[in-house]
Amino acid sequence: MNIACPINAERLWRSLMDMAAVGPGEHGGSCRLALTDADRAGRELFMDWAREAGCTLTTDAIGNLHARREGAEPELPPVVMGSHLDTQPTGGRFDGVLGVLAGLEVLRSLNDHGIRTRHPLEVVVWMNEEGARFSPPMMGSGVWAGVFTVQEILDKQGQDGARLGDELARLGWDGYVPADYRQAPFAACFELHIEQGPVLEDENCQIGVVTGAQAQRWYEVTLTGQEAHAGPTPMRLRRDALLGAARIVELVNRIGVEGGENACGTVGILDVHPHSRNVIPGRVFLTVDLRHPDEERLQEFHQRFHREATDIAETARLGISIHDFWHSPARPFDSTLVDRVRSAAGRLGYSHRDIVSGAGHDTVYVARVCPSAMVFVPCEDGISHNEAENIEPGDAERGCAVLFDAVLETAGRT
Amino acid sequence: MNIACPINAERLWRSLMDMAAVGPGEHGGSCRLALTDADRAGRELFMDWAREAGCTLTTDAIGNLHARREGAEPELPPVVMGSHLDTQPTGGRFDGVLGVLAGLEVLRSLNDHGIRTRHPLEVVVWMNEEGARFSPPMMGSGVWAGVFTVQEILDKQGQDGARLGDELARLGWDGYVPADYRQAPFAACFELHIEQGPVLEDENCQIGVVTGAQAQRWYEVTLTGQEAHAGPTPMRLRRDALLGAARIVELVNRIGVEGGENACGTVGILDVHPHSRNVIPGRVFLTVDLRHPDEERLQEFHQRFHREATDIAETARLGISIHDFWHSPARPFDSTLVDRVRSAAGRLGYSHRDIVSGAGHDTVYVARVCPSAMVFVPCEDGISHNEAENIEPGDAERGCAVLFDAVLETAGRT
Repeated sequence: MNIACPINAERLWRSLMDMAAVGPGEHGGSCRLALTDADRAGRELFMDWAREAGCTLTTDAIGNLHARREGAEPELPPVVMGSHLDTQPTGGRFDGVLGVLAGLEVLRSLNDHGIRTRHPLEVVVWMNEEGARFSPPMMGSGVWAGVFTVQEILDKQGQDGARLGDELARLGWDGYVPADYRQAPFAACFELHIEQGPVLEDENCQIGVVTGAQAQRWYEVTLTGQEAHAGPTPMRLRRDALLGAARIVELVNRIGVEGGENACGTVGILDVHPHSRNVIPGRVFLTVDLRHPDEERLQEFHQRFHREATDIAETARLGISIHDFWHSPARPFDSTLVDRVRSAAGRLGYSHRDIVSGAGHDTVYVARVCPSAMVFVPCEDGISHNEAENIEPGDAERGCAVLFDAVLETAGRT
Repeated sequence: MNIACPINAERLWRSLMDMAAVGPGEHGGSCRLALTDADRAGRELFMDWAREAGCTLTTDAIGNLHARREGAEPELPPVVMGSHLDTQPTGGRFDGVLGVLAGLEVLRSLNDHGIRTRHPLEVVVWMNEEGARFSPPMMGSGVWAGVFTVQEILDKQGQDGARLGDELARLGWDGYVPADYRQAPFAACFELHIEQGPVLEDENCQIGVVTGAQAQRWYEVTLTGQEAHAGPTPMRLRRDALLGAARIVELVNRIGVEGGENACGTVGILDVHPHSRNVIPGRVFLTVDLRHPDEERLQEFHQRFHREATDIAETARLGISIHDFWHSPARPFDSTLVDRVRSAAGRLGYSHRDIVSGAGHDTVYVARVCPSAMVFVPCEDGISHNEAENIEPGDAERGCAVLFDAVLETAGRT
């Protein structure tokens, strides 16, 4: 059963296409690197639309833009729909943008329906989610959630040598409103996003009800053997670092496969030295990325990985160094808000399933200090961070309708 | 039982050290890239020594230098001791040089003993064995043996842009004597060389009696999967090119290990795309090097490799392209000359074993058209193509004594 869709799908799609034309990519995507003139142009287009929709606009101290639709009880903290407008260098048209423009469409539709909410509503455009020009990613939401200080972020240097604080000032995005959840709390935060993975499409499922973000552990591994000539060195006397590395690739895959539906194990980088056709590799560097939504399971993976990788090196007579490079704990979303997303999808008659976010998002940081939830829609072939990134207008419509429903229920109707 | 050594070991070692000082490396080795001024300086030092030893000097049309000690029957083809004086950019002091200067020491010792041979003797300094500046390697011997034409080699361009023919002319190494086994045949060719592998040292063995050169097959393999985000992509939906590559590394190792003492399998290059910590590799390029002294066994490896690599790709749902990049057939040495080397080592009381050459050498080309044999001596840790390359004076002495003995028996004593 499909009930009437509460939002204007055609208007939403038109806005998505108009935004994609700002900083157009060469192959149909977009290029709006954070804090560039293209990023400003994208924001200005959004600001025009937000003003037309009756919003007041504020920029906080780290350059997050807040478009506010006042509530019946202005002293209540806002219910927020946040995402980002900056892109990867060869980014798609929907990553981040969908969440922002669907938020705007929710406000526009509330206007159409003449609906007033108890809580104020805000669409937040987080500063520098992608981390492509200035690293790390998710800076604006990270500062708001207390992960980073304002000062450390202002002092970051871009790949092009620019200082982030200087770029903020140049754009006039260095606002006076504090970027701090303790001084500017939210009642709740929702984010609609493309899945950036293949699960929903593979299962022909329309809505992903995101229950939280995976815990992640990243490692750097160096294997050291003995560089030697591939001809005169018998197999029994070799200490081949690449053979050990191949076994670690298999181990990481096995941990992922045996860890169940939500476990992931990936080796993304593998460098061979000295890198010559007829020289046995004396040294290999590789990176490992292990993920699971459950912190305890990931801890088991962690121990197994250390133990078995060390065994592999010993058996192959190699030296091994394993550097525990990064650990991002599991982040479950607020169960009440997650229920609300699930109910909204059900009410609207959309097929849906629970899903765990494997990628980082602003709302994963926000969820540390504020009740939060996310909505996923499928994207073609699971492809993202790529100009070929694509969704159907129906996906944008359904995601936005769920967002409308969940936000309205949370903000309360007068 | 050690019988009196027929050569002057101290003089040989002094010459090796004097030659190493020409084009000295930064870390104790040598740098005499082919056809550079350093290469010329090395040759000129050798030429001075050869003249002092009473040799006549000739350069052939491709820049191979022949130092000739006349025989009692000058119309007989010469018995040759050939190797090279050019080095890798960070080369050692013995690779090639030992073979040339041991040849010279054989002539000097024959002078000392007042021995006249029936056949003329020649020490040949082959042009550009290493192939570091001008590729491919073993050019001078390859031209002589009819593997390359003079003209194609003259037209080769170096990594620094120089044309080989121009460099030959600049150095005055463009001789008029034909570089062609049909017009200037040898009676036999011997080469003393460091093993460049760890077998002799590992078995505490003084002399390697080289029975021939391995057959080699080189491949280039590209695996194609689906580049995807390491977080949101479940293991069951992945097409991870690196997982397939890891299995091919294991396969190549298994072919080597299961192929017996003289089989080798090596992956020396492996490149991962797109090379990012949290992206599943969509494409991997790797090189494979398979070797065996027996051509039929290598053919079995070849078929097994193609078959099982294709299976691996299919199981991992990957595309695979296998390019048969190079095939160098097995090259057994002349059994009479090999026996002579073995007998010489035995007569001199040196421990010895038969061994197959895994590396390329000038004499491997020469052996195509002329009875040939090689003598190996151990080198420290099997290390070569490295400034740390090292042997003991006793190794040089024993190798040279075996060469003396085998050459004298072949050339005949008047």
